[in-house]
Amino acid sequence: MAKKILIVGGVAAGPKAAARCRRLDPEAEITVVERQDLVSYSGCGLPFYIEGVIEDYNQLLGGATIRDAAYFRDHRGFTVLDRTEAKRINRDRKTVTVLDLRTGETREHPYDALVLATGASPIVPRIEGVDLEGVHRLYNPRDARAIKEAVDAGARRVAIVGGGLIGLETCGAFAARGCQVTILEMMNQLVPNLLDPEMSQLLENYLASKGIKVVKGSPVSKIVGKQGRATAVETADGRKVETDLVVVAIGVRPNVELARDAGLTIGPTGAVAVDEHLRTSDPAIYAGGDCAECTHTVTGEKVYAPMGSTANKHGRVIADNINGLETVFSGVAGTAVFKVLDWHCGATGITERKTRQLGVDAVTALCPRHDYSEYIPGARHTVIKLVADRKTCRLLGCQAVGEGDGVKRIDVAATAIKFGSNIKGLADLDLGYAPSYSTAIDALAHAANVLRNKVQGNAHGVSPLELREMLDGGRDFVLLDVRSREEHLAQTFRDPRTVNIPVEELKSRHAELPKDKLIVTFCATSVRAYIEERTLRGLGFHDVRFLDGSLRAWPFPGYLTR
Amino acid sequence: MAKKILIVGGVAAGPKAAARCRRLDPEAEITVVERQDLVSYSGCGLPFYIEGVIEDYNQLLGGATIRDAAYFRDHRGFTVLDRTEAKRINRDRKTVTVLDLRTGETREHPYDALVLATGASPIVPRIEGVDLEGVHRLYNPRDARAIKEAVDAGARRVAIVGGGLIGLETCGAFAARGCQVTILEMMNQLVPNLLDPEMSQLLENYLASKGIKVVKGSPVSKIVGKQGRATAVETADGRKVETDLVVVAIGVRPNVELARDAGLTIGPTGAVAVDEHLRTSDPAIYAGGDCAECTHTVTGEKVYAPMGSTANKHGRVIADNINGLETVFSGVAGTAVFKVLDWHCGATGITERKTRQLGVDAVTALCPRHDYSEYIPGARHTVIKLVADRKTCRLLGCQAVGEGDGVKRIDVAATAIKFGSNIKGLADLDLGYAPSYSTAIDALAHAANVLRNKVQGNAHGVSPLELREMLDGGRDFVLLDVRSREEHLAQTFRDPRTVNIPVEELKSRHAELPKDKLIVTFCATSVRAYIEERTLRGLGFHDVRFLDGSLRAWPFPGYLTR
Repeated sequence: MAKKILIVGGVAAGPKAAARCRRLDPEAEITVVERQDLVSYSGCGLPFYIEGVIEDYNQLLGGATIRDAAYFRDHRGFTVLDRTEAKRINRDRKTVTVLDLRTGETREHPYDALVLATGASPIVPRIEGVDLEGVHRLYNPRDARAIKEAVDAGARRVAIVGGGLIGLETCGAFAARGCQVTILEMMNQLVPNLLDPEMSQLLENYLASKGIKVVKGSPVSKIVGKQGRATAVETADGRKVETDLVVVAIGVRPNVELARDAGLTIGPTGAVAVDEHLRTSDPAIYAGGDCAECTHTVTGEKVYAPMGSTANKHGRVIADNINGLETVFSGVAGTAVFKVLDWHCGATGITERKTRQLGVDAVTALCPRHDYSEYIPGARHTVIKLVADRKTCRLLGCQAVGEGDGVKRIDVAATAIKFGSNIKGLADLDLGYAPSYSTAIDALAHAANVLRNKVQGNAHGVSPLELREMLDGGRDFVLLDVRSREEHLAQTFRDPRTVNIPVEELKSRHAELPKDKLIVTFCATSVRAYIEERTLRGLGFHDVRFLDGSLRAWPFPGYLTR
Repeated sequence: MAKKILIVGGVAAGPKAAARCRRLDPEAEITVVERQDLVSYSGCGLPFYIEGVIEDYNQLLGGATIRDAAYFRDHRGFTVLDRTEAKRINRDRKTVTVLDLRTGETREHPYDALVLATGASPIVPRIEGVDLEGVHRLYNPRDARAIKEAVDAGARRVAIVGGGLIGLETCGAFAARGCQVTILEMMNQLVPNLLDPEMSQLLENYLASKGIKVVKGSPVSKIVGKQGRATAVETADGRKVETDLVVVAIGVRPNVELARDAGLTIGPTGAVAVDEHLRTSDPAIYAGGDCAECTHTVTGEKVYAPMGSTANKHGRVIADNINGLETVFSGVAGTAVFKVLDWHCGATGITERKTRQLGVDAVTALCPRHDYSEYIPGARHTVIKLVADRKTCRLLGCQAVGEGDGVKRIDVAATAIKFGSNIKGLADLDLGYAPSYSTAIDALAHAANVLRNKVQGNAHGVSPLELREMLDGGRDFVLLDVRSREEHLAQTFRDPRTVNIPVEELKSRHAELPKDKLIVTFCATSVRAYIEERTLRGLGFHDVRFLDGSLRAWPFPGYLTR
């Protein structure tokens, strides 16, 4: 008898599982039920629609071929029931009670294998004013259309509640349309899960240069309205942002009601618990996509990391297992990439902050580098941060921000991390080199070499956060600018402990420097600063360190001249 | 006493080794001798200078800071003796006899550690006319300047002898400047070491669409001249290409005379043999960069793979070993990337052809995919070919050609190959996904999934080369176009065995197809063709295969309508 496969959820993991089941078993009865009338849409494309980069609304629904029930029937060979809500799983008799939202009719749908791909829902804070007109979520194409129409109709001041991935992608879209954007972030930095504070601050400086304001460190407490329309957003610490339009993007929450009501195990992350075959606590029921939790390949911890790419992989793994292929989902590395205006940002693995939480002794490198040979017009800087375990030298994380192509490096680092690479392995990679694609020593390999130098004891760094603390304190040390006099005069630290001795004069002038004090060298990108750390140590200076990333990766412009 | 480190060669590996030695040992006496007066120049940038993308000649020499002897003395702390030729290694007394080419003076330079970074020289065929005016090599910045001046002076018809990496990069440069370019390649395809024939043919078709001619399959036998100037190039099989300018780019040969004369072992590749620490057969002598051979990480074979990126890695490894760090060079994966006009091409690992030479049972995937979500304007196609070992499922190679960003995928594949990834590992990668950077299932993961389907017996491919053979022969089979009628009418195979049954009609019309014949399905990109292979097999058709890559990766336009 034909196997009955029932899939709840029609956006990403669901249709993928259905399509693959169809290919693996021509006989099976495959049904997808989806509460919305939109199926298989591109949630990740919504900011691009708001920006106007995607002009045609239908592109979000599959483009030339709208992926509706008829499409899936005729082209993919399975049944989609849209506007159909799964109300209850009856595990004892292996059925799901479904409600046809068009007719109000309820019936029981039998299954041999059930797939929960119920997705996630945007988190809406329970604050005053959240239901006012002009307060939007950004979850499905209709939300994007409503927002776009509001901007088309003249909304200019935009408040985005939440400085995470979606908030940032969306802020770029609004700014590109000429809106005056303010991001309100409860934490004291943007995207804390992906970027360490100094990296996040570089991004924030870029946003500021584009006129995008960031209000951090306090949650939004109230949305103020006038005649039913939102006019301002207030934070708990009393700041107020006037606005024409509010987008709430503080994250999503897995839709687990169906699973929980059926007694399936919900994991510590709040998402449906699954084993490596993506089976829930009931072996006939699978879960995947934004409703299920994942294992982080670096920490081994369970994490909630909803991503369209992961959802597609889940769909395939589930279909394989339903059809006896016993495929394992090997977890996620926490990879995320995002574009904000002309900056390319991303991260994979874990942050330095996370290593501290885990009690790992981390070594880090902070390297501003060209994405390709600087003599090719168009080469741009990206700042790369690497995080590794000092003891084992295992690569743990990589972050990149800047106008250069850091995203390629994130993909390479994600690959290296998956295979447990140490920092030498990363430096050794035979990456493609041509002047239009990279530098002879790729930015990532360069950063790995910096880590190797540090681990070997040949390089000693001071991070921007550490230096800021030293600058704020009264410590007696020398901040040595090893750049040329012209560079020094153009811009340097405002601190009186700053001294300029250009590289070529150091051998003759080192007597001017004290041997009993810490010397922190810096230059533009930290290449020369590192070399001069070595030179000074060779000359008998014992406490010399270089500023990680030097001026190009310095996140606190207030400390600099001009 | 200070260690004496002598380095022969001042372009890439040499200065790198010197700089790193300086950082590791502030006391050492470090000297680089270089025969030319140009040191540390950017050999890889030469085509960009000819094209005019790099406008300033000095950019090839280091840009704002020319990397000459004074620079290295003042900024890197070591001595460079340019115009100084190493004539002989006196291993017994650990000296090198050097000739000052300016004064004609000869003397002996002592060493504790000697580094051979003597580079390579362009191969010049011994044919009539090769010394005529207008026949250029492309090896150092002066060559590039001479070529550029010739184009500036009106040379329009350009013959490039050699369809390898440098020939291709250079052809793009000439074409961009409006020249009429012909590439003459002795083998019957372009870049045979990097690309399999069908991939190479796609590139050749692109070149043809840009007016670049390729004359293949016969070596150049003669360069014809008039009044001392080259006017035409002739091939051994009698073809003749009229020309104003000839560039000979048939490859380079390692400069090993010094090593060979000193009795050091020369490897089977013709380059200096080195161990994993890059020591030659004399433990006091190291060799790196374009004069040394490498181990291929996939085959374990010794290969000659001169690359600027490898030279820099070599320099670092040598310096480490001179200074007791015992660093190992882990080999190369044969990675190369190159840009030809608007196409991005590359390869890593080994080709399918090479697997046959090695007797490996290979499984391949050929996948034309968008580099990022097709609803984002600017998304473009790249064709990816993967090669894996059918038995172990280990990834062996990846090739990419097209206007889309295949180069990022080459880097990811190179990383996966380094760590011995199998095809599931590649498909499982947690790569960064956002619509402006990739598709939810990245092009590379998609190709890996195709391989998995093939290995699992769920997909059966026919390669373009196999189909061409079938089309040329009399075999009775059905070539089934599963695209819509509109797509079919726009362009399809000219062969009478072609039948069109669109996907949505297949279930009702499959009776029209014979069950006793091979059916080869195709569509635009092979996604639908694969699905319909599954559908037909489900319907009881036993011999169904899909055309790998379908029309978008079909390399032989002569077989198509219009």
